[in-house]
Amino acid sequence: MAKDIWRIGVAGLGTVGGGLLSFLAEHPNFAPAGGMAKVVGVSARSRSRPRPVDISRLPWFDDPVALAASPDIDLFVELIGGSDGPAKVAVETALRLGKPVVTANKALVAEHGADLAALAEASGAPLLFEAAVMGGTPAVKMLREALVGEDVVAVSGILNGTCNYILTEMEAGGRAFAEVLAEAQRLGYAEADPTMDVGGFDAAHKITILAALAFGGAPNYAAAEVEGIDQIELLDIKLARELGYRIRLVASARAGKGGAGEGGVAVRVHPALAPLGHPLAETSGALNALFLEGRRIGRIFIQGPGAGAGPTAAAVAADIADVMTGAARPVFQAPAATLSPLAGIDAAHQATRAYLRVMVKDQPGAIAAVSEALAEASVSIDSFLQKPVHDAGGVPIVLTTHAIRESVLFDAVERIGALPQVLGRPKMLRVAPV
Amino acid sequence: MAKDIWRIGVAGLGTVGGGLLSFLAEHPNFAPAGGMAKVVGVSARSRSRPRPVDISRLPWFDDPVALAASPDIDLFVELIGGSDGPAKVAVETALRLGKPVVTANKALVAEHGADLAALAEASGAPLLFEAAVMGGTPAVKMLREALVGEDVVAVSGILNGTCNYILTEMEAGGRAFAEVLAEAQRLGYAEADPTMDVGGFDAAHKITILAALAFGGAPNYAAAEVEGIDQIELLDIKLARELGYRIRLVASARAGKGGAGEGGVAVRVHPALAPLGHPLAETSGALNALFLEGRRIGRIFIQGPGAGAGPTAAAVAADIADVMTGAARPVFQAPAATLSPLAGIDAAHQATRAYLRVMVKDQPGAIAAVSEALAEASVSIDSFLQKPVHDAGGVPIVLTTHAIRESVLFDAVERIGALPQVLGRPKMLRVAPV
Repeated sequence: MAKDIWRIGVAGLGTVGGGLLSFLAEHPNFAPAGGMAKVVGVSARSRSRPRPVDISRLPWFDDPVALAASPDIDLFVELIGGSDGPAKVAVETALRLGKPVVTANKALVAEHGADLAALAEASGAPLLFEAAVMGGTPAVKMLREALVGEDVVAVSGILNGTCNYILTEMEAGGRAFAEVLAEAQRLGYAEADPTMDVGGFDAAHKITILAALAFGGAPNYAAAEVEGIDQIELLDIKLARELGYRIRLVASARAGKGGAGEGGVAVRVHPALAPLGHPLAETSGALNALFLEGRRIGRIFIQGPGAGAGPTAAAVAADIADVMTGAARPVFQAPAATLSPLAGIDAAHQATRAYLRVMVKDQPGAIAAVSEALAEASVSIDSFLQKPVHDAGGVPIVLTTHAIRESVLFDAVERIGALPQVLGRPKMLRVAPV
Repeated sequence: MAKDIWRIGVAGLGTVGGGLLSFLAEHPNFAPAGGMAKVVGVSARSRSRPRPVDISRLPWFDDPVALAASPDIDLFVELIGGSDGPAKVAVETALRLGKPVVTANKALVAEHGADLAALAEASGAPLLFEAAVMGGTPAVKMLREALVGEDVVAVSGILNGTCNYILTEMEAGGRAFAEVLAEAQRLGYAEADPTMDVGGFDAAHKITILAALAFGGAPNYAAAEVEGIDQIELLDIKLARELGYRIRLVASARAGKGGAGEGGVAVRVHPALAPLGHPLAETSGALNALFLEGRRIGRIFIQGPGAGAGPTAAAVAADIADVMTGAARPVFQAPAATLSPLAGIDAAHQATRAYLRVMVKDQPGAIAAVSEALAEASVSIDSFLQKPVHDAGGVPIVLTTHAIRESVLFDAVERIGALPQVLGRPKMLRVAPV
């Protein structure tokens, strides 16, 4: 695939697309493997919107699919976003024509990765998506290339910068979720419709992709269990802190007993308590962080910016460079034809440590009743704290448990919630494995 | 370069070589990019030494150079070690014949990298050395591929696991350097001649390689400033701890003012104080850790195992996989013909924060004399501590300074050492930039 000039079409000129044009404008001789990168066509929703780089002299395409199909481009960069619609059609079009595709689109890869990989491998066109996960921090490259052949046990970390920013600000400023979210929206850190981020779906797309790379299966977004941070209350952040924890939105993919093949893979996104001093607890603001755990390699930790024009554009540029080297390898860890969707694991059979907050009426016997219900449910307690809190409609009792089967835990939550001394349903959060 | 079978020759069957043979034995179908890896020849000092994998059926070569030259191998893996001698001749031989080379040899790459890159590029053979730095943690791949085109500002971290193990054990057990070193040697964590590790030279080889990749120059080992941990006393570890620091052996490469091209690059290895809670202070035992700082990408942190059979063999296997993909890119960041050695920076012109320990006679006026000498030398003090210590031949005064030019600092150390109230030369250690 050696070429003197790589003619590049860029569809989508938002934050990342603008960042990429800036990167290439600042590196007019970007030729990481001999051939030189040259943007020869762009497409976006609006041609006239202000952008960091003048695009008036670049050939314009109203339709990204027409750009993908243009005989004038050798490599198609998709930065439109969205799991379906024009992004998908454009990527499919380029791959069918044998054109390498670089994309930052996590929804597309998480939901249609296997089909796209099959298209890519049929025509011999690379499909790369480093920028889809952790922005400029090369999680995809680490799993796809550095850990090739390694028996991965688990990957887990913080993959959504917006949620981590909100949780960090809630703790730092002692402010409620809704207030911090509104501010993040004003500042442009959160979308007008924040569901993808705060609902955990963005992180779920990302961990779905990493799971496929780590365990050699097809991405299986439908099997991911997803819980966001929209139900996290400031009270829980404060109480967790008193117990020595910080709440983080943790995305994880962990092989079941007997390995990913026999035991399946639990792919989950949920808020979790990480002990102070633990690298996930110490990952603040919009940073992302990831543990990669392998049988042979031990544990690797990476932390870096998960979004932003500069870092994400650098990841796109790195993928463009990889295409230029002519490297040919499967899109995931094995040829697309051999991939089957990663099997999930029934959550009820997994063990976890948990944090429980129970609001009780301020009267004698409440603690005893809760303790008794826990004992009856065979839940063993690790730490226990009762705090006087006057503005929360009752007195909170908080406790952490030892590791127990989640089905046992859910049962205990039901029992406690049904006690006459207890106000409402207990709040349950998991404690991150360390 | 697509092949059905890649016939691999492995020279050097110590820890890493044995680990590689185990890896390939456990992955008989290792075919990360289509073609399959097959070891078809081995060479080592002793054929009969016990090894994790039976080598009796593999073709044996007494001479690694003959193995490198054998028409029966497609890819040469060099795990002999040493900057010169048979390792160098064998690698040169393979590259001249156009055979891809994978090596874990940091001394070879740091001291002869530019020449080897020229040979490799002349014959079109890849030369890969992921395992040379940080074992299984892919620092080389990150700089060479993920940060391609990025304007790197600095790379710094902990690159020698033996030193970090010794420093961690000194602190944990309150034991002296010599005692911990002797134990590490008994346990096989340190070599019989520990100079390469504890003298800082191993870390210097590694940071020299990373600097070349980060700043797009030829490795310039001769320009590295190197100080090891062999002069670190338990007393300094204890006093640093009281001031809120841990001592680590920090390897760093930092562009001078105006960037690496104009300002040169300071490549250094020295013990430094890292504040408790800082990721370098929290990197314990034999772990390695690295910050990569770029203009666009911000700061990425990676931490993982820096040595050991499993992790290092995984890195070698990843390089073998990369060769199999047919990827072609320059060995460093630019074609070998355009590389010039990275220019150093005169240490005297660099600014640093410092820790000083001054042993004074237990008599009035000592503190005043030291303070006055510091003021005369224009050194501004950040923190000051005097501790009663009864077994150290005098009373230690310890202090940290604000950032000052190193020449000013050296001058102050001379002045203080010459005071009649002061016993011996003050101990000076740098404080790591955070």
